[in-house]
Amino acid sequence: MVPLNTADQETSPERKEFRRSVPHFADRITADGRDGWPVEAGRYRLVVSRACPWASRALVSRRLLGLEPALSLAVTDPIQDERSWRFTLDPGDRDPVLGIGFLSEAYDARETGYPGGVSVPAVVDVPSGQLVTNDYHRITLDLATEWTALHREGAPDLYPEEHRDEIDEVAEGIYRDVNNGVYRAGFAEHQHSYDDAYRRLFARLDELSERLATRRYLVGDTITEADIRLFTTLVRFDSVYHGHFKCNRNKLSEDPVLWGYVRDLFQTPGFGDTVDFDHIKRHYYQVHTNINPRRIVPLGPDLSGWLTPHHREELGGRPFGDGTAPGPVPDGETVPEEGRVA
Amino acid sequence: MVPLNTADQETSPERKEFRRSVPHFADRITADGRDGWPVEAGRYRLVVSRACPWASRALVSRRLLGLEPALSLAVTDPIQDERSWRFTLDPGDRDPVLGIGFLSEAYDARETGYPGGVSVPAVVDVPSGQLVTNDYHRITLDLATEWTALHREGAPDLYPEEHRDEIDEVAEGIYRDVNNGVYRAGFAEHQHSYDDAYRRLFARLDELSERLATRRYLVGDTITEADIRLFTTLVRFDSVYHGHFKCNRNKLSEDPVLWGYVRDLFQTPGFGDTVDFDHIKRHYYQVHTNINPRRIVPLGPDLSGWLTPHHREELGGRPFGDGTAPGPVPDGETVPEEGRVA
Repeated sequence: MVPLNTADQETSPERKEFRRSVPHFADRITADGRDGWPVEAGRYRLVVSRACPWASRALVSRRLLGLEPALSLAVTDPIQDERSWRFTLDPGDRDPVLGIGFLSEAYDARETGYPGGVSVPAVVDVPSGQLVTNDYHRITLDLATEWTALHREGAPDLYPEEHRDEIDEVAEGIYRDVNNGVYRAGFAEHQHSYDDAYRRLFARLDELSERLATRRYLVGDTITEADIRLFTTLVRFDSVYHGHFKCNRNKLSEDPVLWGYVRDLFQTPGFGDTVDFDHIKRHYYQVHTNINPRRIVPLGPDLSGWLTPHHREELGGRPFGDGTAPGPVPDGETVPEEGRVA
Repeated sequence: MVPLNTADQETSPERKEFRRSVPHFADRITADGRDGWPVEAGRYRLVVSRACPWASRALVSRRLLGLEPALSLAVTDPIQDERSWRFTLDPGDRDPVLGIGFLSEAYDARETGYPGGVSVPAVVDVPSGQLVTNDYHRITLDLATEWTALHREGAPDLYPEEHRDEIDEVAEGIYRDVNNGVYRAGFAEHQHSYDDAYRRLFARLDELSERLATRRYLVGDTITEADIRLFTTLVRFDSVYHGHFKCNRNKLSEDPVLWGYVRDLFQTPGFGDTVDFDHIKRHYYQVHTNINPRRIVPLGPDLSGWLTPHHREELGGRPFGDGTAPGPVPDGETVPEEGRVA
């Protein structure tokens, strides 16, 4: 999650508006290893929170590309404490591969006394225990374009050359008004900041709804990076952004197009099987005590609609292009019962 | 609103559960004047907040019974300050009839140094300036049964003799699980208290939805006190209880029966014309800083559905029995533009 706890409340002094902090560690893991971090099977560990929409991008990409055997996964407790993300879901409260209790230890290994926020997704170099990157924006693009030698057979092209400009353009609006827009609304300290974020959010969602009324995916006729980025916010919409962040013009389930679109993706292998609604709800409602001081986690909404037919196949589209769907979720990575919709 | 500010946060020490305080002033205004307060045209003033569901019962009853010429109306600012309900919507910040700036002055006139909460609805004796009653439960029953000499021609019988037992029984469950249940959920200090209130609320709403699937009104085939009591909570459901009080299994608009039922009432003269969504939203979101510390008021939900056809006429029923619908809202009592749905 970028930013975290304290950074979540960061505002610019002039306008008291929520601003997102910039990832500090932006080294890239590439095929040619030009930053000193070559793509290599088994060398790196992806650290995520299943609560976090930014980390969830990497979770989905990794699944779609079949990178599970090459890039191992650590899942943090959805509730940070004052030392931030913790491995309290693991035996002995330590990540079994990195041997650390807190993600901050990997940050410290990289830069002693690093004063900034600790965020997920993070990719850690297993041999040295050092953080390589927390650049959520770049991580998925590199998984799609630099890690190709390790992709599964039939992996889709999530960032196809011929559509990159369009993906970038669509993703930019999604980032500003949707991915980050819900945070601007939720963490607004003043009514005018909230009002502005709310209006931009729903204007953008209306535009996306119109775009998706006649096409199955955002760009081209296959699943791309753009869909992954929109999905991670939409899947959280009714459970946390609608109430907790006051993005409440309507529930997503009241927009037939976007509700069909997000269910289509949710039911596609690699998307819904990464989602833990229990982690999502507990994280948002229990960590943000500045907007939910009593830390009560709502029992709703009813999630039973997520697996209902969406009929989006009628729009055509080839989810994986010339590729195929990913296989089942690896052992040890399935979402616990309490986080699933059925 | 019963209770107010501080009382809203009242909990029993053992279980830390929300408890509603009991109205302190329970004198009755009756046809025979046995408590010293005889029914008399022009003598009393009804003080309400349009935000408050308990006060809104009296607002609806007064309209349906045509008591506007006999019982005048004072509307408070939806936002209390540390002196509680204020007449800051009136010129000079004073109620023009009672000549007071705060409702507490009428409480003080009745009992010097009264230490309890100041609540609406309140009925004040205009000549003496004294509070007569703040017993929201009794006020509407007395308007229906004791004020009959002053009812308009064609006024409905809102508490018909032959149905009183059934009305009382239905109203009891509605009070416990719905009217007060949403507060128990919203003000819960512990997860188990919230969970319990949420489950009882939706179990009761499901039961009411089933009951109302085949009958237009709750008891008999006409509008009664029971409908008024359910209406005042349902009309606030999606705007405040769903998000602010975390009663979010589903929006009311997702339940076709209850959504049809509440729209039917809303579109019936005497119900929707008393509702000020602006007052409702500002009150809940700005006064309860213990659960919404930043006091941001959501822009949603979209209210455009309230005036759509409900088709409940197909169930039969005679809204006003042998009577007729009330006339238009009197001059000076119409809800301001910003509080209306269209």
